[in-house]
Amino acid sequence: MKVLILSADGFEDSELLCPMYRLKEAGYQVDIAAPEWGLIKGKRGYTVTANLALDDVQPDGFRLLLLPGGKAPPQKLRSILQVQEIVRAFVDKEHLVAAICHGPQILLSAGVLAGRRATCYRDVATELEAGGVLYVDSEIVVDGNIITSRQPSDIPAFMGEVIKALSDYQNR
Amino acid sequence: MKVLILSADGFEDSELLCPMYRLKEAGYQVDIAAPEWGLIKGKRGYTVTANLALDDVQPDGFRLLLLPGGKAPPQKLRSILQVQEIVRAFVDKEHLVAAICHGPQILLSAGVLAGRRATCYRDVATELEAGGVLYVDSEIVVDGNIITSRQPSDIPAFMGEVIKALSDYQNR
Repeated sequence: MKVLILSADGFEDSELLCPMYRLKEAGYQVDIAAPEWGLIKGKRGYTVTANLALDDVQPDGFRLLLLPGGKAPPQKLRSILQVQEIVRAFVDKEHLVAAICHGPQILLSAGVLAGRRATCYRDVATELEAGGVLYVDSEIVVDGNIITSRQPSDIPAFMGEVIKALSDYQNR
Repeated sequence: MKVLILSADGFEDSELLCPMYRLKEAGYQVDIAAPEWGLIKGKRGYTVTANLALDDVQPDGFRLLLLPGGKAPPQKLRSILQVQEIVRAFVDKEHLVAAICHGPQILLSAGVLAGRRATCYRDVATELEAGGVLYVDSEIVVDGNIITSRQPSDIPAFMGEVIKALSDYQNR
């Protein structure tokens, strides 16, 4: 049972670490992908090892794609064609996609969020609305297989929903 | 259902934040106590609000006392008589006590760890052994109502055990 976290340097540390530990606690193998293989560093200085480069990512091997926040990762990732293809593969194949804070910007650029209900960090809400997203100011928004939250303090609701959705996924 | 995190400035950020979010996800009210009421700051710069000063802590109101690591909090807390009394009240009344990394140093100073099996951050293992603790190098050690772990990467095992123990507590 594998899940994928996709991020880059400058991630919001708690939004990567706490979901990573929570997913491991629930028994999932957590792979981490970044533009290149190796260490990525959070804005508070924590590091994690990206064991996959974008080239190595096979969406069919994972039940969940999780996109932590931090301003920097979407700036680096959203315009990369390969990232957009990975996101679309997860959404189209009805795997789970969960994004928090600035993470939903990546979903917007991949073209999977227009016409859907979603939330995000308050500073990027107008960008999502301009892109045709039905923005909701709530700690957790679920629309089909896409789960979004606003900020670190939403992590309890975010991970509660992610773990529940993974469990439902297993039973479907 | 209330649980208590006791810490101070210089806490290891992920060892406070991830357990706090995990406990909230499971539906617990998480109170935070510190020597004084107000903001405390982690070594990576995250802040949380201590809503209780030591004077305000009533151990009987909580099912769990959780002690995050970081070198600084035990240095500040372990010699405070009130901290030692709070720890002993939790242990004696068979509430749960969970400590990670440098957190077990506080248990040692409170006199509740001698003769018990426990683990801790590797740099303080000899101190625990000198204090009569049966040190075990394992991601998770449970001895009666005391749960200990070594470091941030043990958080999945640590919180898995804490959540399970809280659930057993509720059913006893």
